[in-house]
Amino acid sequence: MRLTPCLRYRTSSVSSALKERVRRPAYLSRLTLPEELAPLFQNDDYIGWSGFTGVGYPKMVPSAIADHIEVNSLQANPGTKKKFNLFVGASVGPEVEDRWAKLDMIARRYPHQVGKEVSKGINAGRISFSDKHLSMFAQDLTYGFYNLHKKHGDPRKPLDWAIVEATAITEDGHIVPGASVGATPEIIQSAEKIIIEVNTRVPNLEGLHDINQSFIPPNRLPYIITHPQDRIGRTAIPVDPDRVYAIVESNKPDNTGENAPENDNSRAIARHLIDFLTEEVSAGRLPKNLLPLQSGIGNVANSIIGALAEGPFDQVQVWTEVLQDTFLRFFDSGKLAFATATSIKFSPNGFDQFYTNWSNYQDKLLLRSQQVANSPEIIRRLGVIAMNTPLEVDIYAHANSTCALGSRMLNGIGGSGDFLRNAKLSIMHTPSSRPTRNDPTGISCIVPFASHVDQTEHDLDILVTEQGLADLRGLSPRERAPMIIEQCAHPDYKDLLREYYDRALHECLRKGAGHEPHMLKNALKFHINLEEHGTMKIKKWD
Amino acid sequence: MRLTPCLRYRTSSVSSALKERVRRPAYLSRLTLPEELAPLFQNDDYIGWSGFTGVGYPKMVPSAIADHIEVNSLQANPGTKKKFNLFVGASVGPEVEDRWAKLDMIARRYPHQVGKEVSKGINAGRISFSDKHLSMFAQDLTYGFYNLHKKHGDPRKPLDWAIVEATAITEDGHIVPGASVGATPEIIQSAEKIIIEVNTRVPNLEGLHDINQSFIPPNRLPYIITHPQDRIGRTAIPVDPDRVYAIVESNKPDNTGENAPENDNSRAIARHLIDFLTEEVSAGRLPKNLLPLQSGIGNVANSIIGALAEGPFDQVQVWTEVLQDTFLRFFDSGKLAFATATSIKFSPNGFDQFYTNWSNYQDKLLLRSQQVANSPEIIRRLGVIAMNTPLEVDIYAHANSTCALGSRMLNGIGGSGDFLRNAKLSIMHTPSSRPTRNDPTGISCIVPFASHVDQTEHDLDILVTEQGLADLRGLSPRERAPMIIEQCAHPDYKDLLREYYDRALHECLRKGAGHEPHMLKNALKFHINLEEHGTMKIKKWD
Repeated sequence: MRLTPCLRYRTSSVSSALKERVRRPAYLSRLTLPEELAPLFQNDDYIGWSGFTGVGYPKMVPSAIADHIEVNSLQANPGTKKKFNLFVGASVGPEVEDRWAKLDMIARRYPHQVGKEVSKGINAGRISFSDKHLSMFAQDLTYGFYNLHKKHGDPRKPLDWAIVEATAITEDGHIVPGASVGATPEIIQSAEKIIIEVNTRVPNLEGLHDINQSFIPPNRLPYIITHPQDRIGRTAIPVDPDRVYAIVESNKPDNTGENAPENDNSRAIARHLIDFLTEEVSAGRLPKNLLPLQSGIGNVANSIIGALAEGPFDQVQVWTEVLQDTFLRFFDSGKLAFATATSIKFSPNGFDQFYTNWSNYQDKLLLRSQQVANSPEIIRRLGVIAMNTPLEVDIYAHANSTCALGSRMLNGIGGSGDFLRNAKLSIMHTPSSRPTRNDPTGISCIVPFASHVDQTEHDLDILVTEQGLADLRGLSPRERAPMIIEQCAHPDYKDLLREYYDRALHECLRKGAGHEPHMLKNALKFHINLEEHGTMKIKKWD
Repeated sequence: MRLTPCLRYRTSSVSSALKERVRRPAYLSRLTLPEELAPLFQNDDYIGWSGFTGVGYPKMVPSAIADHIEVNSLQANPGTKKKFNLFVGASVGPEVEDRWAKLDMIARRYPHQVGKEVSKGINAGRISFSDKHLSMFAQDLTYGFYNLHKKHGDPRKPLDWAIVEATAITEDGHIVPGASVGATPEIIQSAEKIIIEVNTRVPNLEGLHDINQSFIPPNRLPYIITHPQDRIGRTAIPVDPDRVYAIVESNKPDNTGENAPENDNSRAIARHLIDFLTEEVSAGRLPKNLLPLQSGIGNVANSIIGALAEGPFDQVQVWTEVLQDTFLRFFDSGKLAFATATSIKFSPNGFDQFYTNWSNYQDKLLLRSQQVANSPEIIRRLGVIAMNTPLEVDIYAHANSTCALGSRMLNGIGGSGDFLRNAKLSIMHTPSSRPTRNDPTGISCIVPFASHVDQTEHDLDILVTEQGLADLRGLSPRERAPMIIEQCAHPDYKDLLREYYDRALHECLRKGAGHEPHMLKNALKFHINLEEHGTMKIKKWD
């Protein structure tokens, strides 16, 4: 398992920046150039990467593998073609993931992705994709669920390779991650050979992480966390030094791009939500500092966090998956007491501000593995207030988070199911409509029947659009439908939805089947009309 | 809040059996006849009962209220009509619940029910019903989610009344439940006035229960349970004595009926499952004594537990919601080391055997509240093997557990979502087809598109019918569909399902939307055909 010496750097070429970061000198003898590693990857290899929401992923080796394949035109010939099985906590930077997809190097990609080329490959049938609750992905990997059909290498090892980014390596050889933890601990635990990219451009983030050990049932223990700031682990990820195959120096930044800009709709949604939370505090159903918040990614999330930075609540806590730029504003406002997540996805400017003012933030922030950050156990115990964006929600509160028109994958379910199922308050927010090519409100986000269900009616408390907020707690389906239509639907669709519900109610009650009234022959008519005519505005119900 | 003396029994009439059970003498001064309590219940009252899966529910007072309403013909006149909001952990005996439904006494019924008349009322629009994960119902009650629209009494108290069965009352006035715990602790915690039916016919079951206190976020603690036998609470439910409004003596047994008989299909399913589990042990993915098992209610569950009683695994543990008769056989076989649940639903003969041989079972059994028994935290930590029956499963593994043809409620989701979402192995078992009036295989339990989704594709590992077993772990949707069709579908439907999938695949790949291929215009055609022609056997796809 040792590399031959010819693959090694001469020790003299080790940069001082790298020497400072790698505190276990023996690792430096494994320093390698990425282009020397690239040819070692075999067709059908199982590869895990660090990274989550496009942060903390390996940049050098994946790019070198792509270069190797491109330069040698390996994909042109079935005999030389290489496709890999790729496992990463969530999404990674498009310059590697999307490039791999474009070069048709991905056979399988679990459990999440963001990128035009990846989703194109998935929807064209070139990439096998399966989205899984992010809290479960890492454990299922260690359970051996993803290597059941592995054909080469050690079939008992879930992964042939782990390629992970570090911002430092400790004296014990343990890995200090970048600005995400994700599934990296379990990916390292599951891999036969480990390649570490030590990023000397990003600061050493030692102390930012809380890394606990992942056990397999029946030998598991409670997470002794009762407050977002509780630590249960150590500051670096343990590694078996014998499995460290190579060290690579990296000086590339995370390719995060800008956060989604706010707009009138997102601000209107945020206002409805702040009003609702204020009301809950008045009624005594929420403490004055709320309960730990989870917020997703996107402009609505940005507007909500922005409103909280100016809002009426002090000493707020955050238990979430990922932090965006507006959290910096929230911290700076003095209203955010503590935040924990599995990833920080700031824009390049946001990261500059964060790293420059690190001392202001370091005591108010922890990053954990996604198995812990998204853990049903902790989300339920803390009573998290969860906020996520669906593609569409039906009149009874089933939500589609992933598949447009039932079939076309966008990004995957991510952590939305972990949070919505277990939160004390499960909130979904969406604009009431979206534009199509020929109709500015061609898609209604409120539909009679979801064309794909990721979140069920049993998991949603509050639905909010720019039109208004529907408090669904304690309501039966027949009470929910009129409320969702009146409060949340876009005016262009209200009459159509009312007529669907009224007719379905009438027909189903007559048949003694009126618990959740539907007209099955019309249930997907909005969607079929969209496919055929570019708008959900049907002429009439059949 | 005290009853007037005229409502009281004379103390001389207290039976010796009751004196023995009620160890807090002051309570005996509140001994009352059920018929004296009946008129106190007002239209629109919020009432909680003890009980779970038809065991441990109050029998005397609910029957007296029904008598009162029937004898006085109250329901005939809008001015005298009484309808109540009824909250019970799960189902209760049909002689009370179904009778209440038949008399149109139920305005609202959460979160589960079993009974012809109740479901008839729900589907006819007379009863508002909302099914909720059983782990969440009790906490949502204490959170105040069910009394948001309460119009009378103390609006801050979720319930006006709790009517609960006890098999003893301790010196502290705490309640020893019958053979179920369910949501009783939280129902007692949430009620303004408490009526206790002390059942002197059922033995005093003190020591059978593990009752922990339910807190509200942010003040919650981990459940320190790492093995099914771990205790975290006390043996009785704490009660505020000032809220005990009346004590009633009860001598009626739980009206459980017989367990569902096994048949060829259920035995075939059990064989497939035992083979699979044996294989998992061989491959080292399960310990030799498996992991704690959850099994649902019904004949397949009976066959599986029966097969385990004769099977190859020793020292098996059970972490489940409810125990049926075959568990007695499992205990007696010496192969079941420990079982914990929230309810015991034995047949009358099963209960006789259980109570007679109590000393054989008492150290191997604990009953907990449904908030704990169905807790995602513990299910995931222990790595439970969960087995449940759906109505139908689609070719991508979305399952319908509740609503026939999308609209007609059967029983409710119960705990299936709690277990399937969090188990290490999530298994669903169903016959591949069911009969209709005019076709012995008129319903295919494998459908192109579920007409209602309670469990998503993200929550199912194994699907098994009498035809075979599909191991879906780690597979993408395009890999799952052919496997489900080939392994699980009934032969009468295989060709139709294959053609649906092949055509959907072809059309969706062409459109670049082939992650989870569907033909929306045909997606619900099986169901529409069943509505119109009494069979899912369609002539052709459109």
